[in-house]
Amino acid sequence: MRETPQKMFDTRLFFANGTVKIQHTRGQSAGKAYMKNMNPQRLQVEYPNSNGNLSPDWIVGFIDGEGCFHIGISKNEGVRFGYQILPELTVVQHKRDIKLLYQIRTVMKCGVVRKNHGDRYCWRVRNLENLLKIIIPFFEKHPLKSQKNIEFRKFAKAVRIMENGGHLMQEGFQKILKIASEMNRQNPRDIRIKIESTP
Amino acid sequence: MRETPQKMFDTRLFFANGTVKIQHTRGQSAGKAYMKNMNPQRLQVEYPNSNGNLSPDWIVGFIDGEGCFHIGISKNEGVRFGYQILPELTVVQHKRDIKLLYQIRTVMKCGVVRKNHGDRYCWRVRNLENLLKIIIPFFEKHPLKSQKNIEFRKFAKAVRIMENGGHLMQEGFQKILKIASEMNRQNPRDIRIKIESTP
Repeated sequence: MRETPQKMFDTRLFFANGTVKIQHTRGQSAGKAYMKNMNPQRLQVEYPNSNGNLSPDWIVGFIDGEGCFHIGISKNEGVRFGYQILPELTVVQHKRDIKLLYQIRTVMKCGVVRKNHGDRYCWRVRNLENLLKIIIPFFEKHPLKSQKNIEFRKFAKAVRIMENGGHLMQEGFQKILKIASEMNRQNPRDIRIKIESTP
Repeated sequence: MRETPQKMFDTRLFFANGTVKIQHTRGQSAGKAYMKNMNPQRLQVEYPNSNGNLSPDWIVGFIDGEGCFHIGISKNEGVRFGYQILPELTVVQHKRDIKLLYQIRTVMKCGVVRKNHGDRYCWRVRNLENLLKIIIPFFEKHPLKSQKNIEFRKFAKAVRIMENGGHLMQEGFQKILKIASEMNRQNPRDIRIKIESTP
């Protein structure tokens, strides 16, 4: 499981001395942390604030600027053809905007917020079902305005090949490698090497 | 004049063989280029397409991601206190998205699209009147969702000091330097030196 399901994710935004504090806990300790820091009655008041009013158009504009649709291909002897295909949507922000990443996660109802590198955090969607049922339909309904839309369409094509296990068949696997090699941020040389070394 | 007025700016987006082509001319040659490449009747059909349907929310999301509110302070012996204050909003994009920059310019009805560096272009608003009458009211009506909103509010404060020439008075000038020094992307050391060297 690469993505924490919604219900297990415990991020608390609470107000103390007039400032917003973020507490992020996972697993069994989450409930305790919640009880310690939050008054349950206040949750209903505070979550609407933290959810923000991010409209679909704002999300599209922000993803046009900051989003990255990526098809990772990593060596993994445990999977068919020796390479794992990892499609993901990520948005990286400085930690000062971690609250905004949580807001996006809340509005989009999927993904996780994780430390990226240094003082940067990312919102990331990797779960195939979430990509297929939430992310792809969303950006088909609300198209990106930048050339990133071309990347998105390639990305969607590859993810849909994976929907019914197409990536586990030689033809589907090669199709996805080809799509990945055509995407802007992918290093074509890496892909070429990987194609050559597949059985 | 640091910004080309709307009427002198001639950017033509026209369709040829199913693809959009951009032609960008200025000054007197603009009319000729227009007559050569465009059928005037087609303008009404094509401009709505080229304007795109960039909603205020999309603009806000995109600026949250890619916009930069900046107060430049540059040495200029010809102005009062020896330093010129240059507030600007910029959005830099790879040249593949130059069309999007023109769309933003069309929707926002101000600014210019210029080569930035390498294969990058920017949409830039420097004209004080446009900042005061278009940009600042727009982002006050449609607030940025990221921490960039804090930058914007500082920026707006500085620009409004300039509105009635406040930057030409010692007090206003110092206030703007202070605001600029508090803005994220400004190098505080530069500002400090500049404050020290003002009369």
